[in-house]
Amino acid sequence: MLTVLFADRIENWPAYEPALTTALAEAGIDAKLVLPPADPATVDYIVYSPRGPVQDFTAYTRAKAVLNLWAGVERVVGNPTLTQPLCRMVDEGLERGMVEWVTGHALRAHLNIDFFLSHQDGVWRQEGNVPPLARDRSVVVLGLGALGGACAQTLAGLGFQVTGWSRTQKTLPGVTCLSGAEGLRAALSRAEILVTVLPNTPETTDLLNTETLALLPKGAVILNPGRGNLIDDDALLAALDAGQIGHATLDVFRVEPLPPEHPYWAHPKVTVTPHIAAETRPASAARVIAENIRRFEAGEVPLHLVDRSRGY
Amino acid sequence: MLTVLFADRIENWPAYEPALTTALAEAGIDAKLVLPPADPATVDYIVYSPRGPVQDFTAYTRAKAVLNLWAGVERVVGNPTLTQPLCRMVDEGLERGMVEWVTGHALRAHLNIDFFLSHQDGVWRQEGNVPPLARDRSVVVLGLGALGGACAQTLAGLGFQVTGWSRTQKTLPGVTCLSGAEGLRAALSRAEILVTVLPNTPETTDLLNTETLALLPKGAVILNPGRGNLIDDDALLAALDAGQIGHATLDVFRVEPLPPEHPYWAHPKVTVTPHIAAETRPASAARVIAENIRRFEAGEVPLHLVDRSRGY
Ligand SMILES: NC(=O)c1ccc[n+]([C@@H]2O[C@H](COP(=O)([O-])OP(=O)(O)OC[C@H]3O[C@@H](n4cnc5c(N)ncnc54)[C@H](OP(=O)(O)O)[C@@H]3O)[C@@H](O)[C@H]2O)c1
Ligand SMILES: NC(=O)c1ccc[n+]([C@@H]2O[C@H](COP(=O)([O-])OP(=O)(O)OC[C@H]3O[C@@H](n4cnc5c(N)ncnc54)[C@H](OP(=O)(O)O)[C@@H]3O)[C@@H](O)[C@H]2O)c1
Repeated sequence: MLTVLFADRIENWPAYEPALTTALAEAGIDAKLVLPPADPATVDYIVYSPRGPVQDFTAYTRAKAVLNLWAGVERVVGNPTLTQPLCRMVDEGLERGMVEWVTGHALRAHLNIDFFLSHQDGVWRQEGNVPPLARDRSVVVLGLGALGGACAQTLAGLGFQVTGWSRTQKTLPGVTCLSGAEGLRAALSRAEILVTVLPNTPETTDLLNTETLALLPKGAVILNPGRGNLIDDDALLAALDAGQIGHATLDVFRVEPLPPEHPYWAHPKVTVTPHIAAETRPASAARVIAENIRRFEAGEVPLHLVDRSRGY
Repeated sequence: MLTVLFADRIENWPAYEPALTTALAEAGIDAKLVLPPADPATVDYIVYSPRGPVQDFTAYTRAKAVLNLWAGVERVVGNPTLTQPLCRMVDEGLERGMVEWVTGHALRAHLNIDFFLSHQDGVWRQEGNVPPLARDRSVVVLGLGALGGACAQTLAGLGFQVTGWSRTQKTLPGVTCLSGAEGLRAALSRAEILVTVLPNTPETTDLLNTETLALLPKGAVILNPGRGNLIDDDALLAALDAGQIGHATLDVFRVEPLPPEHPYWAHPKVTVTPHIAAETRPASAARVIAENIRRFEAGEVPLHLVDRSRGY
């Protein structure tokens, strides 16, 4: 019998305990779920989140893998005590949440919904306010992984002109795929709406800075459900004040919770959402965990293995 | 050579003149476009909108058809001077606009975007504010014609549980289709988000009234891009005040422009948009007009012929 440690916040145990029990049984795995402080030397697999109680993996001498419940791994990938394989979460529920958040906020920008919400004043402003069609609107998605790729394809399905950018060259139906430094410049220069769904790595840090923000069409709208490190906050605030950027809706920040005194909160051209774009959903996530344990036990290639040199 | 009268607002002539000229030529129709006051007795086809200058068709003795530029025909279908066949507009551009408006406002409700917009106050409200997934949200579309059908299918494609309702029974992939009085009750009882895309006819007038609004789940959101007559305004205001209806976003009204003193403007649970959901787009609409002239000339069945007894 395997011992699987649940090392997420204890608040999540009531949702995950039945989900993991069911998923492990369905995968035919004979396993016992334990909570900290279980004896580290008995643990075979660690179901992990950075908000959970395990920060030092040294004592987990028997553990065969660390299975992250989050899509992003920046808070664990560089942990020097982590010697086991690390898998991140790719979860269909997480993906749907991200697609819905991105599509909703892209349409909000496209349809100029905030303008109407702030003009409920009895004046019928029809002339000049019929939005263009999505096919006449260019949207750019930076990051074409599990989440960004799904967002790009849904936006293309709605008719938007979609360009995507990633490290390695991709092919996605209906999406113009670019890569590399030249590709980034080309993508930014056409981004009426820019969506950033990149992971937090040394290479993605401050990707949106004074220089790159200046490449965007004047008045561009930014949606960042990726990570806070992607944006140089001072550069974004300056670009918003200068009118170079029309609006930013941000779900992720360098410091979370975003401190009450942060200028984003009060900025009229910024919408803060509290890291709610996409949440790992216990039922589907538990199936991914169980499948990965099955794969490790069978000596098969695990799903969503993190490449530590790339950092994601 | 045929004579085609352009009887829309003169402001639209600069966009339609080249579009119609191109479309007629492409359809192989030898026609001359004229503006009022052309001699009515010389006109073969009337390209019409209720905002244009023609209200009395009596003098158009030679006209073979009236080709409406609008999807809705309630302002012309009962005109006693109209003896010619009347065709309404089904335009791919109009359809895309409607789909985008409905999808954007449905996602706005689904993601609770207004809540975040009105709480930019420095408080990080994450707990309990991750929206459910679209697959756990039930959306109902009343009217499954050219526009409602496209909306229902797009919403289903995004993952929503979609139920549609129409006069005659329909079959749409991914959409639970209902009809009849019993179907309406069943549809309303599950409508967390209700979209009304019905035409204005005697039968659809006040479809949403005190009794039917009470069938909706408490806190339901209403999106009306159909016609103002569909809603008993006093009943809706009462249901909003009572909390039975959570919010209404309305694009169409019994009187347009909506008068400045109308209570909808100031109501905190109502968003008014100024009849901008979907606009006929000259290029694609001109192709529909030209194709219909070709069909009338060839003795073929015209597109989108209005059934006067039904009123749409
Ligand atoms: N706000 C939320 O609620 C929330 C929830 C979940 C996840 N997220 C964020 O979303 C991120 C993306 O998740 P995912 O599952 O889509 O990750 P993923 O599958 O690993 O995809 C990452 C994408 O970013 C690209 N990329 C990485 N580094 C790059 C670089 N230096 N230059 C260009 N492209 C680069 C990758 O390119 P290649 O394809 O070439 O490798 C890939 O397309 C996560 O890392 C996390 O930060 C946020
Ligand atoms: N806000 C805007 O900008 C805008 C723009 C364009 C159009 N519109 C409105 O949208 C409406 C719909 O356009 P459309 O092109 O989709 O029309 P359509 O193709 O004629 O479809 C009308 C739909 O409503 C159903 N219906 C009509 N009367 C009904 C009744 N008494 N009970 C149940 N269902 C009934 C029809 O049922 P059957 O299929 O069984 O006939 C059909 O499914 C237009 O009439 C117009 O008022 C608004």
